[in-house]
Amino acid sequence: MADPLVEEFNAYRSRMNEQISGAKNLIINRLFNLDTNCYEPGTVDVVTKEMIGLACSMVLRCDDCVKYHLGKCHELGVTDQQIFEVFSIANLIGGTIVIPHLRRAVEYWQALNKN
Amino acid sequence: MADPLVEEFNAYRSRMNEQISGAKNLIINRLFNLDTNCYEPGTVDVVTKEMIGLACSMVLRCDDCVKYHLGKCHELGVTDQQIFEVFSIANLIGGTIVIPHLRRAVEYWQALNKN
Amino acid sequence: MADPLVEEFNAYRSRMNEQISGAKNLIINRLFNLDTNCYEPGTVDVVTKEMIGLACSMVLRCDDCVKYHLGKCHELGVTDQQIFEVFSIANLIGGTIVIPHLRRAVEYWQALNKN
Amino acid sequence: MADPLVEEFNAYRSRMNEQISGAKNLIINRLFNLDTNCYEPGTVDVVTKEMIGLACSMVLRCDDCVKYHLGKCHELGVTDQQIFEVFSIANLIGGTIVIPHLRRAVEYWQALNKN
Amino acid sequence: MADPLVEEFNAYRSRMNEQISGAKNLIINRLFNLDTNCYEPGTVDVVTKEMIGLACSMVLRCDDCVKYHLGKCHELGVTDQQIFEVFSIANLIGGTIVIPHLRRAVEYWQALNKN
Amino acid sequence: MADPLVEEFNAYRSRMNEQISGAKNLIINRLFNLDTNCYEPGTVDVVTKEMIGLACSMVLRCDDCVKYHLGKCHELGVTDQQIFEVFSIANLIGGTIVIPHLRRAVEYWQALNKN
Repeated sequence: MADPLVEEFNAYRSRMNEQISGAKNLIINRLFNLDTNCYEPGTVDVVTKEMIGLACSMVLRCDDCVKYHLGKCHELGVTDQQIFEVFSIANLIGGTIVIPHLRRAVEYWQALNKN
Repeated sequence: MADPLVEEFNAYRSRMNEQISGAKNLIINRLFNLDTNCYEPGTVDVVTKEMIGLACSMVLRCDDCVKYHLGKCHELGVTDQQIFEVFSIANLIGGTIVIPHLRRAVEYWQALNKN
Repeated sequence: MADPLVEEFNAYRSRMNEQISGAKNLIINRLFNLDTNCYEPGTVDVVTKEMIGLACSMVLRCDDCVKYHLGKCHELGVTDQQIFEVFSIANLIGGTIVIPHLRRAVEYWQALNKN
Repeated sequence: MADPLVEEFNAYRSRMNEQISGAKNLIINRLFNLDTNCYEPGTVDVVTKEMIGLACSMVLRCDDCVKYHLGKCHELGVTDQQIFEVFSIANLIGGTIVIPHLRRAVEYWQALNKN
Repeated sequence: MADPLVEEFNAYRSRMNEQISGAKNLIINRLFNLDTNCYEPGTVDVVTKEMIGLACSMVLRCDDCVKYHLGKCHELGVTDQQIFEVFSIANLIGGTIVIPHLRRAVEYWQALNKN
Repeated sequence: MADPLVEEFNAYRSRMNEQISGAKNLIINRLFNLDTNCYEPGTVDVVTKEMIGLACSMVLRCDDCVKYHLGKCHELGVTDQQIFEVFSIANLIGGTIVIPHLRRAVEYWQALNKN
């Protein structure tokens, strides 16, 4: 079973996504669809796309977005060493202001590894 | 009575604003005054100003600022459909990185509706 | 005829949008379509939507986005005083870091007024 | 003994820094070293450097970074009045979007003063 | 006489500030006044305040704001070595994304030194 | 020979990097070294790293950083279709505020293709 940190994140995300889609705002629902389509296989492979999503989330310092892409990377079998290389690029580009988000990302990655 | 989510936000905000104003830093206190004056009726009406404040808070991804302007919009009678239209503009401008903030905004808006 | 500042902005924008759409990337083209749909009349009126777009562009400090929404506001008959009220909200939310963008926005608004 | 707010922040920070350094990613570990070296005495004195770190953290709206530099400023004997002057510069540059972070910063500074 | 880079920056700034103040928007004019007052001597000295303003401008990546505070630091006799120490803090906090702004800052600093 | 857009970018970049390194600030020079090391082959391949760098630069809206990574991607043989897929991810994450930067990125990519 999933670690509570992972469980709680996924449950809240699912619950609120349902509320949002239920509001039937066409622009928002299409934006969510685009978001799904965007990470599907193309001329850039899925692992690369998820790494890009992870790094962008990190430099923009969005903990929830980081968690989401970490979950996807974990499913896709990205290794610890690869994840830390992506972290290193994001931290260098984004600077030390990213470090607190790195801490939470590492904690979440460890939670995913415990599953 | 207010939903705990709303209650807690307002209480913390009031308590800390008092601490801040008590420190008697002239620049900060004037900035707070400007903030109050800025949303008063002018050639742009108050509802539009609060919608602008809400959308700006969302693209800048400040949950507390979003909550504050949601509270004001609620008092002013902004409808669910209008709020989601403002959300849609902010989410499109700000991108999918805004989605986690949208989730929390929707949760807070629902809490305001429960009151 | 349009002021050179306005002319140049519109010409570059049109030319590059054509190049982008010609690349036939489905996600990007759909995002551009969403962008058009988002500012169409709804339960929030078009002027308010453009003011929201303008203020968000200003706090996010994107000169070209500011210019685009200034152009739309101008077409819609927004007055000088209203534009400055929107500017004032954006500058207060975004802080003095926004001031250089305010300068360029005022210059562009004056160019639109000359047309 | 330290206030729980301070205690908890420092404990989490130390624990996760250890995990990060244990991952032995060369880029990240060097970035952490640079971070330490950067705030050492130079032609700019340490108090000024910490004030700069604090203000930058505030305009970039990173609560944990703000807490860290507040801790350092407290150790270095920076006064309440000086801290509020730094807050005022950061809040003016960063705008009212910084206010929720100012609230949490003031709360943390008070916790440091209780120790 | 001033280097053209410095001359042009100051001339545009003065001209547009006049236009802005002439629009007589109370919020904006008060914000500009606060901006002036904020950097006046207090319990934090003027050089430190300008260094803080410079570093914040750099991490927020506003070239014009960087130029303004570089001009002030130059007037106040801040040395090359001190400026580079401030740059180093800002670049470390803000990451490599700040480097293009560092390039333009160094170019402007050299222009100020030529005067 | 290189397109003037590419030529000018590279020349300014080289010239200012030399000035920066000549200032002998240890922190800045080490940060530049880290920047070089970070994109070297590791458990994540070089093309993926450059795509990550490109996408992060785009969501952080730094035109010069985008240009730099576009140049690297071009050298590495990244295709038009792949570049637009990276663009699409960055634009979706970062929102329509990124579009003006997309325009300039497409213009620069076309300049690289002309070489």
